[in-house]
Amino acid sequence: MKRRDFFKKAGTLTAGAAATTALAAPAIAQNTYNWRMVTTWPANFPGLGVGASRLAQRITAASGGRLNVQVFSAGELVPALQSIDAVIDGSAEMSHGAAYYWQNKNAGLSFFTGVPYGMTSREMAAWVRYMGGQEIWDEIYDQFGLKGFLSGDTGTQAGGWFRNELTGLADIQGLRFRTPGLGGQVWERMGASVTNLAGGEIFAALQSGTLDAAEFVGPYNDLALGFYQICKEYYFPSFIEPGLATELVVDKAKFMDLPQDLQEIVEYVCQAEYDQVASDFYANDPRALQTLVNDHGVNIRQFPEEILEAGANAAIDILTELRESNDALTRKTAESFIESLNLLRTRTDDNDLTFLQARERYFQIS
Amino acid sequence: MKRRDFFKKAGTLTAGAAATTALAAPAIAQNTYNWRMVTTWPANFPGLGVGASRLAQRITAASGGRLNVQVFSAGELVPALQSIDAVIDGSAEMSHGAAYYWQNKNAGLSFFTGVPYGMTSREMAAWVRYMGGQEIWDEIYDQFGLKGFLSGDTGTQAGGWFRNELTGLADIQGLRFRTPGLGGQVWERMGASVTNLAGGEIFAALQSGTLDAAEFVGPYNDLALGFYQICKEYYFPSFIEPGLATELVVDKAKFMDLPQDLQEIVEYVCQAEYDQVASDFYANDPRALQTLVNDHGVNIRQFPEEILEAGANAAIDILTELRESNDALTRKTAESFIESLNLLRTRTDDNDLTFLQARERYFQIS
Repeated sequence: MKRRDFFKKAGTLTAGAAATTALAAPAIAQNTYNWRMVTTWPANFPGLGVGASRLAQRITAASGGRLNVQVFSAGELVPALQSIDAVIDGSAEMSHGAAYYWQNKNAGLSFFTGVPYGMTSREMAAWVRYMGGQEIWDEIYDQFGLKGFLSGDTGTQAGGWFRNELTGLADIQGLRFRTPGLGGQVWERMGASVTNLAGGEIFAALQSGTLDAAEFVGPYNDLALGFYQICKEYYFPSFIEPGLATELVVDKAKFMDLPQDLQEIVEYVCQAEYDQVASDFYANDPRALQTLVNDHGVNIRQFPEEILEAGANAAIDILTELRESNDALTRKTAESFIESLNLLRTRTDDNDLTFLQARERYFQIS
Repeated sequence: MKRRDFFKKAGTLTAGAAATTALAAPAIAQNTYNWRMVTTWPANFPGLGVGASRLAQRITAASGGRLNVQVFSAGELVPALQSIDAVIDGSAEMSHGAAYYWQNKNAGLSFFTGVPYGMTSREMAAWVRYMGGQEIWDEIYDQFGLKGFLSGDTGTQAGGWFRNELTGLADIQGLRFRTPGLGGQVWERMGASVTNLAGGEIFAALQSGTLDAAEFVGPYNDLALGFYQICKEYYFPSFIEPGLATELVVDKAKFMDLPQDLQEIVEYVCQAEYDQVASDFYANDPRALQTLVNDHGVNIRQFPEEILEAGANAAIDILTELRESNDALTRKTAESFIESLNLLRTRTDDNDLTFLQARERYFQIS
């Protein structure tokens, strides 16, 4: 330590009149934990894979290397969609992905990623942190010895890539459209012929004509996958994914065995990442969109009202069915989500929405 | 350590085939730092004062007590509006407040809190974290030996409390309205007679008739201050405060002298709080609004278009003046903010706004 630094620190340590007596960290805190994080994302996948790696680095750095997290991208240790099973069977301590991938374990898990016409990323965090969402999520994952934390959000996604302009519901009847999960169910009820494909397979399917149209994430990811080479009509917004929250899932018993300070670090780094990932998408989606429009001749479109309305009706039906599920935890999750959304919307609609409308209408500065 | 725990940990430490060699934290990391945080908020002030206290607790907990932060609410150690001066003169190491309180030090600081018709909380984070905002902020605070971190956001605020319904600009001419900062300048240019008063003085001024109307934060804070007893017309949105970001300011030299892991903890806890504070407001504003409407007979109103438009024109004038300021850093801040906002808006307007409009129009589930 340099002499100057010593005096600075000495000053800091003694200057506080009301300073409490702080003890050195207990010896147990010096244990080092080497944890493996499996992810559902390819390495360096914009926003999401990058987010998983950064989260691991941040935990390692903030813990001074005491909780050392090594990342295994999709397929490196286990296939993407076996990530939480790897945590359950003990071959990893952490999984980074999206809760709706595990909806076969419990249908309520979809709500912790996002559902059609559901919560925005701000509303989701409010529900999870202040309106009972985390407690219900814990109840679901407790059955599997797991615990989940929000760890990122894409914000509202893009609606999809189409070969031709859409004029109404007639144009999507029988359309072979790639979209997964509850959003896929919405499009199916609207008349599309829905299939799911992994991100890396979409381009070839569009090119060969197996697919007519596809939605994936948003400009930041979609640009990289080259869909603009086949489809020029890019529709907004994704009414089926108004937000997509990612999760960090940990082995609960091992997590509870960590020293308290390391548990806190995991929790706060996840929460910091919830903001960081959203910031990444908010900053980089519009940059990618500029490239798509200016360099690749993509047209930005809004869905016709008829499609937005039919999508809402399908979403209402699906959420109502989930609320009437045979599974008690699914019912409880859906009920809490819907009740919280209805309360949160009073703020969003009266305030956020009306501000954005006023800004769009009156505020232009170049 | 219990025997069972020992074996669990031993398993964790050896199971990873690719585990890296991790060293025990170096001895210097065991130093304990007792830091004082002064704040601009009263103790237990909903959302903001509570956020400052939670931030201090989280840093203390995540550092295992090595960085022990003690909070002094407004007036306890120094008056609210001398908080960063206390950090500059060394009587505290941290200040929790809002950057626009220090606009007399540099007018560019307003942009890191929020400006009329400016960025929402998501846009602000994108600018600061990915579009050069933090670097400009650092440049401003460097002059004072300080560094700032975003540490919270209220989301879009409420527009204000009025005694009578507003039909247009005519109704606000000469109106004695409480609102601070650049927002106050906007209302003044629209014809109001603007005064600033501390939060605790507003109620008495409304009651005595010294004030005709006032805006403060939003339902969560405003309910506590009792404005509904005088004014029943509650207007939305606050076009002058589309987001209000709080900041944690640290003594930069002392911060850089902290061990690296403690620096990381401060940074990530601040970012976690940016999300936590916003979640608190999103969850609790609508609850407070229900109380105001159901128990206190408050009417929720939207500003007339004429007022929204005049406000936008005044905001454009003010931001243009800041962009043409004599001060190079103010010009640079304004230029970066406006350029980033214009890019960010393409996403917000095409996507977030259109989703919220569609949800409002078509999605109702009770």
